[in-house]
Amino acid sequence: MTDLSTHPTRIAGAWLADFASALESNHVDAAIALFAPECYWRDLVAFTWNIRTQEGPEAIRAMLTARLADTQPSAFAVEGEATEVDGVVEAWFAFETAVARGRGHLRLRGGKAWTLLTTMTELKGFEELKDERRVNGAEHGVHPGRKTWLERRQDEAAALGHTEQPYVVIVGGGQGGIMLGARLRRLGVPTLIVEKNERPGDSWRKRYKSLCLHDPVWYDHFPYLPFPNDWPVFAPKDKIADWLEMYTKVMELNYWGSTTAKKARFDTARQEWEVVVERDGREITLRPRQLVFAMGVAGYPSVPQIAGAETFEGEQHHSSAHPGPEAYRGEKCVVLGSNNSAHDICAALWEHGADVTMIQRSSTLVAKSDSLMELGLGDLYSEAAVKAGLTTDIADLIFASIPYKILAPLQVPVYDEMKRRDADLYARLAAAGFMLDFGPDDSGLTMKYLRRGSGYYIDVGASELVANGSIKLMSGVTIESIGPRSVTLSDGSQLPADLLVYATGYGSMNGWLADLISPEVADQVGKVWGLGSDTPKDPGPWEGELRNMWKPTQAPNLWFHGGNLHQSRHYSQFLSLQLKARLENIPISVYEVAPSFHAR
Amino acid sequence: MTDLSTHPTRIAGAWLADFASALESNHVDAAIALFAPECYWRDLVAFTWNIRTQEGPEAIRAMLTARLADTQPSAFAVEGEATEVDGVVEAWFAFETAVARGRGHLRLRGGKAWTLLTTMTELKGFEELKDERRVNGAEHGVHPGRKTWLERRQDEAAALGHTEQPYVVIVGGGQGGIMLGARLRRLGVPTLIVEKNERPGDSWRKRYKSLCLHDPVWYDHFPYLPFPNDWPVFAPKDKIADWLEMYTKVMELNYWGSTTAKKARFDTARQEWEVVVERDGREITLRPRQLVFAMGVAGYPSVPQIAGAETFEGEQHHSSAHPGPEAYRGEKCVVLGSNNSAHDICAALWEHGADVTMIQRSSTLVAKSDSLMELGLGDLYSEAAVKAGLTTDIADLIFASIPYKILAPLQVPVYDEMKRRDADLYARLAAAGFMLDFGPDDSGLTMKYLRRGSGYYIDVGASELVANGSIKLMSGVTIESIGPRSVTLSDGSQLPADLLVYATGYGSMNGWLADLISPEVADQVGKVWGLGSDTPKDPGPWEGELRNMWKPTQAPNLWFHGGNLHQSRHYSQFLSLQLKARLENIPISVYEVAPSFHAR
Repeated sequence: MTDLSTHPTRIAGAWLADFASALESNHVDAAIALFAPECYWRDLVAFTWNIRTQEGPEAIRAMLTARLADTQPSAFAVEGEATEVDGVVEAWFAFETAVARGRGHLRLRGGKAWTLLTTMTELKGFEELKDERRVNGAEHGVHPGRKTWLERRQDEAAALGHTEQPYVVIVGGGQGGIMLGARLRRLGVPTLIVEKNERPGDSWRKRYKSLCLHDPVWYDHFPYLPFPNDWPVFAPKDKIADWLEMYTKVMELNYWGSTTAKKARFDTARQEWEVVVERDGREITLRPRQLVFAMGVAGYPSVPQIAGAETFEGEQHHSSAHPGPEAYRGEKCVVLGSNNSAHDICAALWEHGADVTMIQRSSTLVAKSDSLMELGLGDLYSEAAVKAGLTTDIADLIFASIPYKILAPLQVPVYDEMKRRDADLYARLAAAGFMLDFGPDDSGLTMKYLRRGSGYYIDVGASELVANGSIKLMSGVTIESIGPRSVTLSDGSQLPADLLVYATGYGSMNGWLADLISPEVADQVGKVWGLGSDTPKDPGPWEGELRNMWKPTQAPNLWFHGGNLHQSRHYSQFLSLQLKARLENIPISVYEVAPSFHAR
Repeated sequence: MTDLSTHPTRIAGAWLADFASALESNHVDAAIALFAPECYWRDLVAFTWNIRTQEGPEAIRAMLTARLADTQPSAFAVEGEATEVDGVVEAWFAFETAVARGRGHLRLRGGKAWTLLTTMTELKGFEELKDERRVNGAEHGVHPGRKTWLERRQDEAAALGHTEQPYVVIVGGGQGGIMLGARLRRLGVPTLIVEKNERPGDSWRKRYKSLCLHDPVWYDHFPYLPFPNDWPVFAPKDKIADWLEMYTKVMELNYWGSTTAKKARFDTARQEWEVVVERDGREITLRPRQLVFAMGVAGYPSVPQIAGAETFEGEQHHSSAHPGPEAYRGEKCVVLGSNNSAHDICAALWEHGADVTMIQRSSTLVAKSDSLMELGLGDLYSEAAVKAGLTTDIADLIFASIPYKILAPLQVPVYDEMKRRDADLYARLAAAGFMLDFGPDDSGLTMKYLRRGSGYYIDVGASELVANGSIKLMSGVTIESIGPRSVTLSDGSQLPADLLVYATGYGSMNGWLADLISPEVADQVGKVWGLGSDTPKDPGPWEGELRNMWKPTQAPNLWFHGGNLHQSRHYSQFLSLQLKARLENIPISVYEVAPSFHAR
């Protein structure tokens, strides 16, 4: 037993010592010699002040050549015991840079580095006031004129955005903005969140009422305050909404509800933003140094222009505005689209006695929720993972340690198994005419999510209704034209319709920029989201990271934050550290801001 | 090293095996032979359906004789490694009874049991729906007519107390009622909390504004949802208030604010309570099976009857009604009392420029907060304890494992050290005329708290003001009479007074019973709180547990819950299990309900 447990640690320790020695003596060649020919170094802010994967020895050489002198890495030390499975040695390690502490993860094959992850954990001298650093709360001793916690909170709320300017304005007060706000609060970065809805959580409350999270609880925890251990596996939307509202309050975030961002302009001379917002009908100009868009994973609702839509006498709306099924009992409902929202809405309408037809325009990935939980997430995010000691933080770092380049091939066997396991459902869906796919390279749902943020349904029951014909299906067609009480499909068939739901997705996030800032800045930034995989809706060139997310963009002092709860949680750490470093005037040299592609 | 770590575990394992064998074969004599002549068996619900300490072999024999056949203990197993310090072997163990699972703690001296703790953890078949048992949240599949989480919550809130009766009504929606409510929610016990204030947390919000918790954060965690790791050591009152409000919402408690309990009567024929409450000006009769008083650690504010009080032309109020110092700048303020509230109020008034005199009627224990944290609580509740692996749950059980009989002598050395460490402060306080004590047996603050709930000040700065004369002190006197703008003390001296604060404490909790139920029931129950130590304000006879707290009382279906945050957290576990067992008609035989003493 001793051999199995200590040998990998010894191997990893030796590699790390060599690596540290090469870096500390500025021997780039010696460092490169420690990597395998196929190798990846993913860095989250620690070396590059960017979120970047260096793919291959030459990319690593270029990065080190540019960044080693500034970074001054040191104090590398293996943490815990390394493991070895199938010839791959895995180890955790701690390290420092000139300005920060970090945590890393290493995979060795044949003694050489296959994957390396370096992440920034905290800035030296600007650590969070937690655990033994926490504040005292009561100010012992005698302090004439002292203010209480409540008075200080009230003073701060009254001043921020009026007599004092926030360093960061976050546009969008959903989960992403709130999680980032909590991180920035911890770091002492004056931040104001502006949100068009009245209360935190409203963006969930206002969605269709059967909505539950599609990701399981272990994947969804918030920073600092994990859900209680009886939290449902798939939280209902209103429960998450209440949690968001509570979290915003407990974390003492400065949150302006009922506030709409109207216009923003970067004042180059003053190096600050002018952000005009309307709050309770009154215009206020905010002057933050940094502006973060945190409006989810997508842009504006996409509603296709269809001839005759204006003549429709029934009700028509985008899925994001769908109120739920109650009002449509006995009515003829047509839902355009076949992704998550389309399925959820169709199922709820059918449950409430509506006559429902789904229009499937193109093939869709269907993954049963249980299978996805077990096969796709279970190793990292499940009760079993928790019992095995995988904290949320460790699971996030393991997930982050897999470069996007090799994530797709690693996912293929997962979906091969899913096809076997759920063969019966897939056969019946196909027999019902449903067009199935598993991604252009069979790499499944996670890759579709990362590449395009769409193209799938996580099945929680609606697929059975499609398979058995309860939800009528028209596939391989779209709506060609709309009449007063009907739609005409591209195959010439006609359907009567009282309700028409456009479950047609969302545009790119840079659509907001065009409206709020300018079309020029939107094009300067380019497409947001996607890896550049050159697959449908994710045009190349390959970038190897999500475009423009959580990292410097081509527009100065402009940032994007968002994604699912997992991403909002984990990447808010790195975005908050980048913002804090700028507030504190820590010397920053960003390694290769990604060029922009795909103007609107 | 091997000897040190395995030997105690072997000793404990052997003892536990003998104990298990004796109990499982119903050999009471054999079991008793395993105890030392000085021995204590503290049981929290598992064996006795009561909270009781059996002191000495004969008390243990009596308990076992009465309870062994019903309890059917089994499956004893040492958990983790036992330890040995100074000849005392300590071990954790798991066990089961016929109806429950439990956890125990054991201290052996010379191979015999010195202290034994047995606690009930969960009822078999009625486990909390947590971790792998958690609910799914989303109901996968197709369920026509399904209701959402929000609809079900709304339906429940609309029905409870109107068309459906709660099993438990908790009178008092402060921290105690809320924590117990959360436990009962987890156990599926229909519960309604009624609270006279509008919102959860208002009982904190309405207190004097400089108030912070006097206990540190590690001692104060709530069940299920620990504070974030940046929570202040001593949380300000308004921050705790917001937490209470959030917690009530997130835990989905049924909470009626602005609701006053007016009258309660136990209907013996129907075996249920009739509780008349006034909610928003309307009378509603609730019919719960169980009634819990959770109104803190004390009863009504005590205001002494002083001649001439009605002639006073300034402002006079009890400390619980003190609004804070702002309005009293430059005024002459007299504070009657010398415990926590008196000191806090005096200091805040002095900070705001008032002329303040404290009237100390009798000696007071002063413990500097830092010293108390380090010497009194640090082993169990501190950042160091957390780092050493002491979870809140483990710390609570260790605390619970020390019988009250031996807690007092164990505390004496703590205060000896405190007297040495803070000798300078104590000397200067004495020089200023302040009457100090450390308890009748020098056992300090915790014992004063448990015995009488009063008699001390946790110094966060005011003692310095007393010592240096900033807060004027009149000690060994009381107020004899009151004039329009002055008070006359028992030594004949007279003080001018614009403000008179009665920081004079609270009555016994059974005062509420007299008003809400009847004087007869109040006397049937007797004094609430106190151990029976035969020390000031804790008259005997010795009971060895807190009178009437968290356990069956002499009045059927009537319970008391409360205490500080630590006690509310830990003992709510045992009260909730007792209530759940009754709801589920689990056979219960309470071993020796404590007789009542000290009618009002």
